[in-house]
Amino acid sequence: MDYEKLALEYHKRSPKGKIEIQNTKPLDTQDDLATAYSPGVAGPCRKIHENQDDSFQYTSRGNLVGVISNGTAVLGLGNIGPWAAKPVMEGKGMLFKKFANIDVFDIELALEDPDEFIKAVKALEPTFGGINLEDIKAPQCFYIEEELKKSMSIPVFHDDQHGTAIIAAAAFLNALELTGRDIKTVKVVFNGAGAAAISCASLFLTLGVTPENLLMCDSKGVIHSGRDDLNKYKEKFSRETSLRTLSEALEGADAFVGVSVGGALTPEMLKAMAKDPLVFALANPDPEIDPREALAARQDVIIATGRSDFPNQVNNVLGFPYIFRGALDVRAITINEEMKLAAVKAIASLAKEEVPEEVLAVYKSPKTCTFGRDYLIPKPVDQRVLLRVAPAVAEAAMQSGVARLNLDIEQYKVDIERLLGPTRRFIRRLRTRSGEMALKAGKKPKVVITAGCDLRVIKAARQVADSDELQLCILGNPTEIESKAEAAGIPSLDGIEIIDPETSDLRHEYANTLYELRNRKGVSRTIANHMITDENYFATIMLERGEADAMLGGIKNYYRNSVLPVLEVIKTVPGKCPAGVYIMSKDQQL
Amino acid sequence: MDYEKLALEYHKRSPKGKIEIQNTKPLDTQDDLATAYSPGVAGPCRKIHENQDDSFQYTSRGNLVGVISNGTAVLGLGNIGPWAAKPVMEGKGMLFKKFANIDVFDIELALEDPDEFIKAVKALEPTFGGINLEDIKAPQCFYIEEELKKSMSIPVFHDDQHGTAIIAAAAFLNALELTGRDIKTVKVVFNGAGAAAISCASLFLTLGVTPENLLMCDSKGVIHSGRDDLNKYKEKFSRETSLRTLSEALEGADAFVGVSVGGALTPEMLKAMAKDPLVFALANPDPEIDPREALAARQDVIIATGRSDFPNQVNNVLGFPYIFRGALDVRAITINEEMKLAAVKAIASLAKEEVPEEVLAVYKSPKTCTFGRDYLIPKPVDQRVLLRVAPAVAEAAMQSGVARLNLDIEQYKVDIERLLGPTRRFIRRLRTRSGEMALKAGKKPKVVITAGCDLRVIKAARQVADSDELQLCILGNPTEIESKAEAAGIPSLDGIEIIDPETSDLRHEYANTLYELRNRKGVSRTIANHMITDENYFATIMLERGEADAMLGGIKNYYRNSVLPVLEVIKTVPGKCPAGVYIMSKDQQL
Repeated sequence: MDYEKLALEYHKRSPKGKIEIQNTKPLDTQDDLATAYSPGVAGPCRKIHENQDDSFQYTSRGNLVGVISNGTAVLGLGNIGPWAAKPVMEGKGMLFKKFANIDVFDIELALEDPDEFIKAVKALEPTFGGINLEDIKAPQCFYIEEELKKSMSIPVFHDDQHGTAIIAAAAFLNALELTGRDIKTVKVVFNGAGAAAISCASLFLTLGVTPENLLMCDSKGVIHSGRDDLNKYKEKFSRETSLRTLSEALEGADAFVGVSVGGALTPEMLKAMAKDPLVFALANPDPEIDPREALAARQDVIIATGRSDFPNQVNNVLGFPYIFRGALDVRAITINEEMKLAAVKAIASLAKEEVPEEVLAVYKSPKTCTFGRDYLIPKPVDQRVLLRVAPAVAEAAMQSGVARLNLDIEQYKVDIERLLGPTRRFIRRLRTRSGEMALKAGKKPKVVITAGCDLRVIKAARQVADSDELQLCILGNPTEIESKAEAAGIPSLDGIEIIDPETSDLRHEYANTLYELRNRKGVSRTIANHMITDENYFATIMLERGEADAMLGGIKNYYRNSVLPVLEVIKTVPGKCPAGVYIMSKDQQL
Repeated sequence: MDYEKLALEYHKRSPKGKIEIQNTKPLDTQDDLATAYSPGVAGPCRKIHENQDDSFQYTSRGNLVGVISNGTAVLGLGNIGPWAAKPVMEGKGMLFKKFANIDVFDIELALEDPDEFIKAVKALEPTFGGINLEDIKAPQCFYIEEELKKSMSIPVFHDDQHGTAIIAAAAFLNALELTGRDIKTVKVVFNGAGAAAISCASLFLTLGVTPENLLMCDSKGVIHSGRDDLNKYKEKFSRETSLRTLSEALEGADAFVGVSVGGALTPEMLKAMAKDPLVFALANPDPEIDPREALAARQDVIIATGRSDFPNQVNNVLGFPYIFRGALDVRAITINEEMKLAAVKAIASLAKEEVPEEVLAVYKSPKTCTFGRDYLIPKPVDQRVLLRVAPAVAEAAMQSGVARLNLDIEQYKVDIERLLGPTRRFIRRLRTRSGEMALKAGKKPKVVITAGCDLRVIKAARQVADSDELQLCILGNPTEIESKAEAAGIPSLDGIEIIDPETSDLRHEYANTLYELRNRKGVSRTIANHMITDENYFATIMLERGEADAMLGGIKNYYRNSVLPVLEVIKTVPGKCPAGVYIMSKDQQL
């Protein structure tokens, strides 16, 4: 698919670009105005003036990250400048919002000089709760991040360095475990000496790789002690060695980590590596070696890339949204090594857990979702990453003394699930579309869901019902539903009403209602008796009779043609419901 | 009301602060991700790299204003710093969004030094389509704005200077006209020599006030040629005069403009002024003289303040949202004097037009809405301000050669009405809540509105029907509706269906439907025949029968207890419908 062409149309259509601001509080009356703005706003201003940290209480700052770039090293495009970098930064903001509900102002600064850039970013501290540096060229990016971390009291994180490093490190740990290797003796060769490579190599050392066992190559070959062309960041990886080329370095090596250019790793080099070689071919869009070519060269290779169309995608989105979520939620003053390591371990550990249906649904081949050579790290769509990484990072921040808040971490796990999870969005959607009256009357809205025998529906129902904010009714054969739930390890269906339209006693009365409503349209009693056994008609009549406040239908059908899981459907925002799926009250035409 | 206390609660409740980001494009599938972000995003990046102005095409920049402050002169609070200024800046952003659909990143910079501040703001040019400077202390603010205007190719506007000046100037022109004065001979005394006063005085000179006739006082009295304590901005207003005090200066003066402190103007000073004195007592929250006190001193005074609870409120919100709207829409490289003057004239001219019902509805006393001593400028809630000021500013930008785009100004007026007006929001709301099926089927959604005899409903219906995107039906007595429309100068009701539930032939069939649906609940045929003559039941049955896609009801009732006009109701966002008003499909409980 020609994504660049699609992207031109996507970015250009109104409203141009990809983000907008939304007011989160009412501004409809004179009183609202006097509260949101002059004179009432003086109240929050005074509080913050007394105590600077109160800005987290009275402004959006605590959930606001600046994605900041000068456009000197954008994707594969190089130094295209801050104007041209803006689409990438807006996109990064979208990912923060989508995956962790973090608000982002994307800031493009026309400042190439590192010291000027540092001054400008530092001055932005009152605006933001955190800073995500992006697409700044090496080696300036190291200096910029170091200086800002030193002088700012909010998290500063250069995702190009640490994002890739954290995800790659998680995959690396799991690959070592799979192949029974000891991290102390494993031999690793890096190709590329840019921001990501240097950060990743540093992280590998922190994790336990022996420095002498880690060689790094740049465009001139192995970085060795005889070279005098090294900046201080590369210097750290200079080794006493007689090896001079990537090819020489890889002989007998256990792992290759490429953050360089497509094709840099040849089949011949790969063949010279140790048994069960680990290959991280992270160049984008063309990896250092095509995974098919690698497997053709030797079957024992374990390969990870940056691409979504091969197993083991090392995708930053597994990291930065959740690392910032955890850091913001404890109002951390920095993102330190402990927090990064906590993220690595949480990601690595999650890969060993069973993968839920809603994630499997996205991928054609389920075998790539069981811990093993083809599944070293979780998939980017896996919602559990948020629920594991954010609390792990928050906990590490508290334990290492960089958190302004101390949270009860177990409660935080519950909160984050409720805040960001499907239940919350489902509720919000319900409120908007149909449940308003039920909510006003103080009763829990009742939602009826068709396709109750679909395991994805059962799991979603369990999750929603646990929140205790809705009454749930799923339609389908109870025996089938219960056995599927049991097989999936769902301990109980308590709190979920199950009705089988084919056998329920209600069906007679409902058929009668259906007949009364539609007999003018030619629905006879016999036809009504037949129709009512259909889940969709049954649910609709529940609505018509006021016995449910909303129905969720069409999911089964939707599933046949698409890759999105039930939870994605449930959390779809109003007005953007994908075709074939509906959450509704009484507006269905029978 | 204790607005400061209310504001603490308002700002603190979740989500904290007042704004959030919303993604405007889908990000649900792998394809979406590849289009919004890597690799597709490279397409827009390349385009902008080739032509910087393409950033207006492919990013949110063209609708994005930076509200930037260093917190050195916040409201009446003084130099409270950038952290404490954030609630005000977020509030300003809300106003931009609410009144002109402009997105705002509020940027608080920890930079007091003017040159450092200038450098940082200048570097933000790739991020924004315009810069609104805010709450920066004088005289630094003058230098900062001047320098930024010189070096940036996007509009830079210090609202504290020009916002108040533009609105006050409009009121001033109209007051001169009302009292039959010639601007060349009018004598004006300013009290206060801060940002707003100096900008306002400059604008008065541009409009034609004779320099010798304009005196300015600061805290030390009249600014005269004998003083050696003046900065270069005050120097411009230094005059050869023997007058030394405000009191002396005001003797026989025609106009007083106070941007100083409460109580600065005494009744005695006022009494010494010329006949029909113009008093602009703009200090907030306490004006230089209380309007009641002024009128007690002399009945011929014409007084304007910054407050909403007196006539002639000089409120910046009449200016900045629309000035930026016009400037952004032609991609102006600056906001120049021509554009400011165009805004002044558009605002002044609008005050002489008849005021629509929906504005009158907000104010208790209609006499303060007819051009005259108590109505020199439009009300802040008047939607027509957008429709007049934005095109006037856009046109002035084009004519003075600072627009990147040349728009057909007549088409722009139509576009802006559609883009921002009630119809668009009504449609959006309909799509979301009930009209989806009608819209999908390609037919115009039909909306039935109760309380058709309310003139506000009639006017709203006319406006909505003119957009040709909806079929409209209003319920009520046709004779009454037509005579009200005629009296209000609405030329025709073409395109609006009018049905009288009390006499329409449809009522028999509808009563029958009502009976069929509700007889189990005890509704007899006789009761149904009676009920159906009620507009609300009639509209509901239209929905039940699928003869309307949505109904808008409850407005009449709402009006009794509130100040919001029909158009406000119609554009209310889903989920925030005020109590008593509903837009709905079939979810009403009979």
